[in-house]
Amino acid sequence: MDKIKEKVKDLKARLAEISDLSNAAALLHWDQQTYMPPGGAEARARQLGTLNRIAHEKFIDNTIGDLLNELQEYAGSLSYDSDHASLIRVTKRDYDKARRIPPSLISEIAEASAKAFDAWQKARAEFRFATFAPHLERNITLKKRYAECLGYTNRIYDPLLDQYEPGMTTTQIETIFMNMKQEIVSLLQAITPKMDIVDSSFLHQAFDEAKQWDIGVKVARLFGYAFECGRLDRSPHPFTTSFSTNDVRITAHFMQDYFPAAFFAILHEVGHALYNQGIRYELERTPLAEGASLGTHESQSRLWENLVGRSRAFWKFFMPHLKDAFPEEFHNIYSENMYRGVNRVEPSYIRVEADEITYNLHVIIRFELEIALLEDTITVDDLPWMWDNKMEEYLGIIPPDDVRGALQDIHWSSGSFGYFPTYSIGNIFAAQLFDHIKKEIPDIEAYIEKGGFQKLLDWLHENLYIHGRKFTLNELANKITGKPLQIDPFIQYLKNKFGEIYAL
Amino acid sequence: MDKIKEKVKDLKARLAEISDLSNAAALLHWDQQTYMPPGGAEARARQLGTLNRIAHEKFIDNTIGDLLNELQEYAGSLSYDSDHASLIRVTKRDYDKARRIPPSLISEIAEASAKAFDAWQKARAEFRFATFAPHLERNITLKKRYAECLGYTNRIYDPLLDQYEPGMTTTQIETIFMNMKQEIVSLLQAITPKMDIVDSSFLHQAFDEAKQWDIGVKVARLFGYAFECGRLDRSPHPFTTSFSTNDVRITAHFMQDYFPAAFFAILHEVGHALYNQGIRYELERTPLAEGASLGTHESQSRLWENLVGRSRAFWKFFMPHLKDAFPEEFHNIYSENMYRGVNRVEPSYIRVEADEITYNLHVIIRFELEIALLEDTITVDDLPWMWDNKMEEYLGIIPPDDVRGALQDIHWSSGSFGYFPTYSIGNIFAAQLFDHIKKEIPDIEAYIEKGGFQKLLDWLHENLYIHGRKFTLNELANKITGKPLQIDPFIQYLKNKFGEIYAL
Repeated sequence: MDKIKEKVKDLKARLAEISDLSNAAALLHWDQQTYMPPGGAEARARQLGTLNRIAHEKFIDNTIGDLLNELQEYAGSLSYDSDHASLIRVTKRDYDKARRIPPSLISEIAEASAKAFDAWQKARAEFRFATFAPHLERNITLKKRYAECLGYTNRIYDPLLDQYEPGMTTTQIETIFMNMKQEIVSLLQAITPKMDIVDSSFLHQAFDEAKQWDIGVKVARLFGYAFECGRLDRSPHPFTTSFSTNDVRITAHFMQDYFPAAFFAILHEVGHALYNQGIRYELERTPLAEGASLGTHESQSRLWENLVGRSRAFWKFFMPHLKDAFPEEFHNIYSENMYRGVNRVEPSYIRVEADEITYNLHVIIRFELEIALLEDTITVDDLPWMWDNKMEEYLGIIPPDDVRGALQDIHWSSGSFGYFPTYSIGNIFAAQLFDHIKKEIPDIEAYIEKGGFQKLLDWLHENLYIHGRKFTLNELANKITGKPLQIDPFIQYLKNKFGEIYAL
Repeated sequence: MDKIKEKVKDLKARLAEISDLSNAAALLHWDQQTYMPPGGAEARARQLGTLNRIAHEKFIDNTIGDLLNELQEYAGSLSYDSDHASLIRVTKRDYDKARRIPPSLISEIAEASAKAFDAWQKARAEFRFATFAPHLERNITLKKRYAECLGYTNRIYDPLLDQYEPGMTTTQIETIFMNMKQEIVSLLQAITPKMDIVDSSFLHQAFDEAKQWDIGVKVARLFGYAFECGRLDRSPHPFTTSFSTNDVRITAHFMQDYFPAAFFAILHEVGHALYNQGIRYELERTPLAEGASLGTHESQSRLWENLVGRSRAFWKFFMPHLKDAFPEEFHNIYSENMYRGVNRVEPSYIRVEADEITYNLHVIIRFELEIALLEDTITVDDLPWMWDNKMEEYLGIIPPDDVRGALQDIHWSSGSFGYFPTYSIGNIFAAQLFDHIKKEIPDIEAYIEKGGFQKLLDWLHENLYIHGRKFTLNELANKITGKPLQIDPFIQYLKNKFGEIYAL
């Protein structure tokens, strides 16, 4: 047994070293997005390359594979959710994947992505999809090879999705999205003629940036984000990053003429950050010291942003605080106006600006096109018109150009196929969780209306956050709600909320 | 010959990786001092430990030693100051030193330093030297072992000094400091009775911090500091750090009631930063992409801070700018008042606050005591009264407590013996360089008086900065001025300047 202890200790020491390297890389990336002067870019790319390469080399070392194999029997003797069994299981999953990809393919992908990113920026500046097309083609070819290396039994999209959402299958998502699409499209068709009964014009005014900052900090604190273990900074695109569970940082980008942009982005990032700050300290410096998956992470950002931040209860509580900050701007605006205003539904071209309903249609379009591209049922050249067709079919609008169409979003330029569905998975899982929370804490909305966010945070902490990456999303969903990922609570949430707002 | 090329390439690739790791560690340290939330401290210490350990392991790898040995003949066939000969020579010097220290001793020193640092802080809070004494004792014991590992022929202080000032010997410094001490003590004795003929009371007022910041940025730009390859931030103690020659950052700490504190600290750090920004780009990612030594680096910070920033020519040029920022505060103050005010001489207890004359006496005290401790002619327990005796003898004042005596300055708590003399070496070398510059550019002061700092920067760039770490300080001194480090120009500078100010 002492031999086993030695092996666990050795494994953990090796993983701790890799974790330190990855967290250092995360800080380099944070700095790159926040404070780095332009001159630093070239050296920073090299430094990130070196840290990531060394971390990868150390992780795929044979010794780690040997230790994981030697510890299989021990892991099997423990309960599934114990720290050691989970560590060995999740690390083995990562290790097997990492070993299947030849380093040369990793380099090829990195090189192609860098070129594709430049071409994507150029294509956007030129409003010319064809500039990006050959690079996207190349990214797809390489990602197919990548998927072949990882291996799959059914669909080529499975191993790619699995990178971001372990254990989830293309077919499971297809079923869920199919239902979601029908429900949402018909909901949207009912809302569209009544769109203008919701006024949000008062959100478009000049808002002092320092006050926006302060109100963002205020709501972050109220939600329970610990500033002594984090900080808020400015960056062109908002994001959350961690260097330990006690150093979880968020960023925001402020728009002078539209208050909700930064405000809800902060709520969103705070949701991610609360998750990271809540991971059990004992999991630090292991592969378990992260969120369960991208979809699970997104469920937390969306839960705090939408299910809390865009709720009537929240605005009943928070409107006086907002009016303190902007008394003139919101002179005749009351909590009900705000609740309705921030929930206005309107089909639009850009995913990241979309409301809670249309957002998921943007994701479905990407998801369907990604599968079609990877399964060779369409070519890259078909993308622009396919995009337009789907936009017209699902959202009833056609983008005036590709920049507001298939050229939006950075993901394809970096070859991140399989990533998009996790955005909607997050929305769906958030609703499933919140539906369950309402059963366990029936007066949760009354707490929120009084600013008692701690009640919600405690529940999430105990049931979700502390586990880190021990379980997959479906495992968590089963463990918490007794079922795998379900679409019904999300559809019901949308129907109730928007049915009432739009008097359907 | 192709084999040689391969070996150089291999060596450079290995050194580049190590350089990336060290630069990443430098960013982690920068963040620790500027933006890191308190909660991040524990993980940051571990991450820094890991990065430094991996960099060290990779550097002392046998392959690097083999490559350096195999390249000796090639290096010998090149001119001494060629890139390759210098790279092989300087790397070999570092490598041989690094290999002589057992990893266990490095860990022991790191552990003892961490404890000594805590004890030092406690001792300062308690005003009790005895709390720190056993830890200092331990640091000295370990540093003696360290010096024995490195080896020496004459003095145990030699290898310690050599860590910071390669090629410099204890005896060379003793000779220089001996002369300096006599000259400075007698100069100070002449000034002391006339101290109050220089008024600096107008420097002690309330100065708006944002304006202090702006004027600091202004002077940094004027000196030629490239903000697109750097930035200014706040930190408790000002410092300069680099992650590449195109990302060289400085920090400052602002005092509300004393304008010169931040202003001259910024000039000082800008001096360091100009040096780092000026290193030839081709030396990036090698051990040559740094300043020649601590003393050489300090010569540049002191040159810009004192020889430029505390000169009459500078204030003739800059006073109108300062008056723009602080019109009321400096209503009746003219450039001559400012020149005299910022050059007021007054014996004081704290080194970092000392004027250009007394500063070096503080350094000499540390230097003499360090040698006495390491050569066992005094014990740690003798320090407090020895300190007081020397303060009285050299500066004519006795510190009222050890916090303003032997407990000031962090260096001994981290076991950095051999570091202190580089502060005065910097002052001395700065004067030697400036004396030479005046011969090569006789109208340099006229340039400064017109704000033409580029003339000086260009000269320093061409003659000093571009070389990076190719040469030692004495090699640079010889190369530039035809002589090794000389005390005369510095003494002459002090006598001329302060003789005139105090009408001696």
